[in-house]
Amino acid sequence: MSIYNAPLKDMEFILNDVFKADEFWQGNENLAHLDMATANAILEEMAKFSKNVILDLNRTSDEEGGVHFNHGEVTTPKGFKDAFKQFAEGGWVGLGAPEEWGGQGMPKMLTVLADEMIWSTNPSFMLYPLLTVGAGIAINDLASQEQKQTYLPKFYTGEWSGTMCLTEPHAGTDLGMIKTKAEPNEDGSYSITGTKIFITSGEHDLCENIIHLVLAKTPNAPAGSRGISMFIVSKFLVNAYGSIGERNAVAAGSVEHKMGIKGSATCVMNFDGARGYLVGNENEGLAAMFVMMNYERLSMGIQGIGAAEFAYQNAAEYATNRLQGRSASGTKSPEKPADSILVHGDVRRMLLNARANNEASRAFAVYVGQQLDITKYSTDTEAVRKANDRVALLTPIAKAYLTDKALDTCLEAQMVFGGHGYIREWGMEQCIRDLRISQIYEGTNGVQAQDLIGRKTIRCGGAYIAEYIAEIREFAQDMDDALSIKATVLDVSKQVEEITQFILEQAKQSPDFSNAVAVDYLHAVGLLSFVYMYARISQAAQAKDESFFQHKLILAQYYASKVLPDLAARLQRIQAGADLMMQLPEEYFTTQS
Amino acid sequence: MSIYNAPLKDMEFILNDVFKADEFWQGNENLAHLDMATANAILEEMAKFSKNVILDLNRTSDEEGGVHFNHGEVTTPKGFKDAFKQFAEGGWVGLGAPEEWGGQGMPKMLTVLADEMIWSTNPSFMLYPLLTVGAGIAINDLASQEQKQTYLPKFYTGEWSGTMCLTEPHAGTDLGMIKTKAEPNEDGSYSITGTKIFITSGEHDLCENIIHLVLAKTPNAPAGSRGISMFIVSKFLVNAYGSIGERNAVAAGSVEHKMGIKGSATCVMNFDGARGYLVGNENEGLAAMFVMMNYERLSMGIQGIGAAEFAYQNAAEYATNRLQGRSASGTKSPEKPADSILVHGDVRRMLLNARANNEASRAFAVYVGQQLDITKYSTDTEAVRKANDRVALLTPIAKAYLTDKALDTCLEAQMVFGGHGYIREWGMEQCIRDLRISQIYEGTNGVQAQDLIGRKTIRCGGAYIAEYIAEIREFAQDMDDALSIKATVLDVSKQVEEITQFILEQAKQSPDFSNAVAVDYLHAVGLLSFVYMYARISQAAQAKDESFFQHKLILAQYYASKVLPDLAARLQRIQAGADLMMQLPEEYFTTQS
Repeated sequence: MSIYNAPLKDMEFILNDVFKADEFWQGNENLAHLDMATANAILEEMAKFSKNVILDLNRTSDEEGGVHFNHGEVTTPKGFKDAFKQFAEGGWVGLGAPEEWGGQGMPKMLTVLADEMIWSTNPSFMLYPLLTVGAGIAINDLASQEQKQTYLPKFYTGEWSGTMCLTEPHAGTDLGMIKTKAEPNEDGSYSITGTKIFITSGEHDLCENIIHLVLAKTPNAPAGSRGISMFIVSKFLVNAYGSIGERNAVAAGSVEHKMGIKGSATCVMNFDGARGYLVGNENEGLAAMFVMMNYERLSMGIQGIGAAEFAYQNAAEYATNRLQGRSASGTKSPEKPADSILVHGDVRRMLLNARANNEASRAFAVYVGQQLDITKYSTDTEAVRKANDRVALLTPIAKAYLTDKALDTCLEAQMVFGGHGYIREWGMEQCIRDLRISQIYEGTNGVQAQDLIGRKTIRCGGAYIAEYIAEIREFAQDMDDALSIKATVLDVSKQVEEITQFILEQAKQSPDFSNAVAVDYLHAVGLLSFVYMYARISQAAQAKDESFFQHKLILAQYYASKVLPDLAARLQRIQAGADLMMQLPEEYFTTQS
Repeated sequence: MSIYNAPLKDMEFILNDVFKADEFWQGNENLAHLDMATANAILEEMAKFSKNVILDLNRTSDEEGGVHFNHGEVTTPKGFKDAFKQFAEGGWVGLGAPEEWGGQGMPKMLTVLADEMIWSTNPSFMLYPLLTVGAGIAINDLASQEQKQTYLPKFYTGEWSGTMCLTEPHAGTDLGMIKTKAEPNEDGSYSITGTKIFITSGEHDLCENIIHLVLAKTPNAPAGSRGISMFIVSKFLVNAYGSIGERNAVAAGSVEHKMGIKGSATCVMNFDGARGYLVGNENEGLAAMFVMMNYERLSMGIQGIGAAEFAYQNAAEYATNRLQGRSASGTKSPEKPADSILVHGDVRRMLLNARANNEASRAFAVYVGQQLDITKYSTDTEAVRKANDRVALLTPIAKAYLTDKALDTCLEAQMVFGGHGYIREWGMEQCIRDLRISQIYEGTNGVQAQDLIGRKTIRCGGAYIAEYIAEIREFAQDMDDALSIKATVLDVSKQVEEITQFILEQAKQSPDFSNAVAVDYLHAVGLLSFVYMYARISQAAQAKDESFFQHKLILAQYYASKVLPDLAARLQRIQAGADLMMQLPEEYFTTQS
């Protein structure tokens, strides 16, 4: 019953007009093989796959109850196996992976858009290749040449898949507390023993082998997070020449029953002296895992856009067809028994909030993608340094702010349906259940906010945000004064600059301050980022007469007048500080004291 | 795995200290039989019932998949039948109903607190007696003496239950479009034919008969909402002397599969020439139904408090026991492997937001309950007139603002659990799924906002809100200047007064304006109401030394500095008006134009 049409025109506008992708690609010898025509062709193919192959499986897999667990074996929902085969054969697993290992070598600013379509149409399905891609990045960055040769080509054909095994029952955010052990064997391998939970794609039937990247502690490792190493533990051992050997001592103990993404297998994984191989150096596992985590974190933001776009499209379609009541400014459809609910300002408010956040989110993802592409492909060391700092600053925004806005959007889209939004057959309630995890996994959005305010702001004395604001100012100053968004983005830049200064000062005086105001700061920087995106969108749309472009200018004004006001609330909360919160004793919270 | 302990101490504080219940009850001859000791005893009994009888059934009924439908018969989840028997035998169905018909005659300011406990522990269960109580109110207000005698006593023993049958597939908010027909028979009864959807408790196995209140149109009735009449249609016809006769031509065609409240039977009801009896006068059915709807709307607010209290308690318990990381201001539990996550400001932020909104919500529900009690029991006509206006103004706030804040709270409480909050066994995700309907049914929260800004504000030229603000000012002016909330509530009163004036002016110029800003206005009035509650709470707590009271003062300050800032955003959005929203053409929403 759900509809989905990939927003190809908007995607092309963002790539071509806003971020001048052709110019960027042609100006970089590593990307010069790509142009907008090729990019559009790739996006059109993915639009077909997502709409024709996986969209319907999204509902049916949820109705089926998701994955099935039976004595350590996981069966994916009906249709997933065939769809994954098509996906792998289409070369989609390795779309952004190095050509050297069988990937397609496409830049991030393009793959984020392809990924968005899969997230829109079937988030559970998306999680299978996603973890493989993440594991591939970690292996490519850190593993030995032999390990790369063994695993990477199998990943990108879709024959094997990957996982990341971090969390244990008592250790989530605080990975320094993990207990999984890695005992060295005489042949250079390790015996891995322990239990990991919440392992996405830990066991399934889509691939012939599963490659786990496992965090564990070697004997005598330093305490805490400095004593964590990363190991490859494969479901089936791999023989010389890469053929599959005997079963390793790792198995799924159960699958979790979850709020959503039921088609994704979330496993408890038991390692019982499983043979593992060190990746990189001992005790450097956490840093290694963060390479993968950062990639996933951006992906969670794309999950948000995907869900929010799906929710918007379905709500707009419903609103257009639902006839109820009459317009306050005079009947609009006298030939019908009632006007469509689109005549009501409140319905438009919900749909425009959705669209305003979605279009900014998409532009922002492409912007961060472009920064990642600079870090990967540029030969200009200063440009790479800057882009690395920008990515460090904006990864928590991409993960947390985009998913927070996406939940708002999906909830409002469900509300457009009234009671029908609460009924399973319309797909809106599943959309919310599936999306909700994006705010929680890969570091909760609260943890992202700590990362932004602590590591990315206070630790560098605000250098990253200062450089970001300088870029925004430079862009805005070149804009035509006739665009009202110009004054807005300059004003917001100043407010965020000032609140950052306030935070840097307060953090010196109160160690608890930054944690308490982190989420509000993340939203303030998110709002700045989105208004910056609307400055860039407006600049690109300004000179063109077509309604498509002129509507972008209206949406930018809508954003500034109707969404941006949240900034005032965020700033006030930051100014209120942490004292009231910290003075209450612990027992206050669990008693009526 | 979920915990629940009724917040009896807070409830007593609100009744006794904040709203001086004893004084109020003793001062009213119709309520003079009640005192705080009796009230506390009732609440303690309900605390036991909710914790010991229905809490566990909440999880199990959801896991069971909710109600079962088989050829028109609905079986409620395991344990519901026995629990309902206990509930009915305890006299709980008629707790607030007239003693004349077998009820207990308890005032609303007490029953809202008892209801909250059921909503906390088993919202699906609550919906069975709730609809009966609502139907009872409509019958008591509008039906003939004979009809009252026939139905009301059976309701309050729990032998029979009630429903309200309004919505049809094409007619939800716009009830003027309903098609269900009522053809008069020669014996004075009517033949009812049509299909109703989303009928809560439309069919179930808890009671021996089900009494449907059905909206339908008689032949030649005026078009639209002025041509709607209300009928009693019972599942089994009722013989003289009240015994049960043959089956009527009404049956459940199916049950809906929903996001949550799966233990509640949401039915499609088919009326196939069913025998019905007019309630009140022809063509006055919609007004009649609103008597019942208004009652339900306040109940939805209580549903919000119940869910939010449950979510808070579980999140606070989890946070206390979850050890992860160390406090930024120095280790708090050196004997443990890590500090509890309560040391982190962000976790406290989520819990204090929850608690600040919950305690204000509860006080507000009691306040509105007291106003309802004045309308019902007072003999002072001016007091009754004022209370009626106050209830009219605040019903949409109680329904929509309380449930909006409750969803925020439940989402943040789930977030406190990290990944565990997403797993079904912890109960947090069910809490969200169950709560979500409260924002949608009985008129969506958007429709509530239209009611507030249109019927309750613009139509009376702002008279209701002006009188409310006058009451708030009068209260605040008597407060001790040392309480900082005094200045806050006066300031907020002024801001809401000014924005109301702005709205009244704009509404004259732009017919689309009020609909577009309604939700923001509802939130502004909600914030005013909660800061008023904190003024009253602070006033009651000020003179007392116990930490229980002193912590109320801190929570009031927390509310003013950390929650109230949302007001700035709401006012800015209202000032931005509707023009940008309304100028976009309809096709903009469903195309990339």
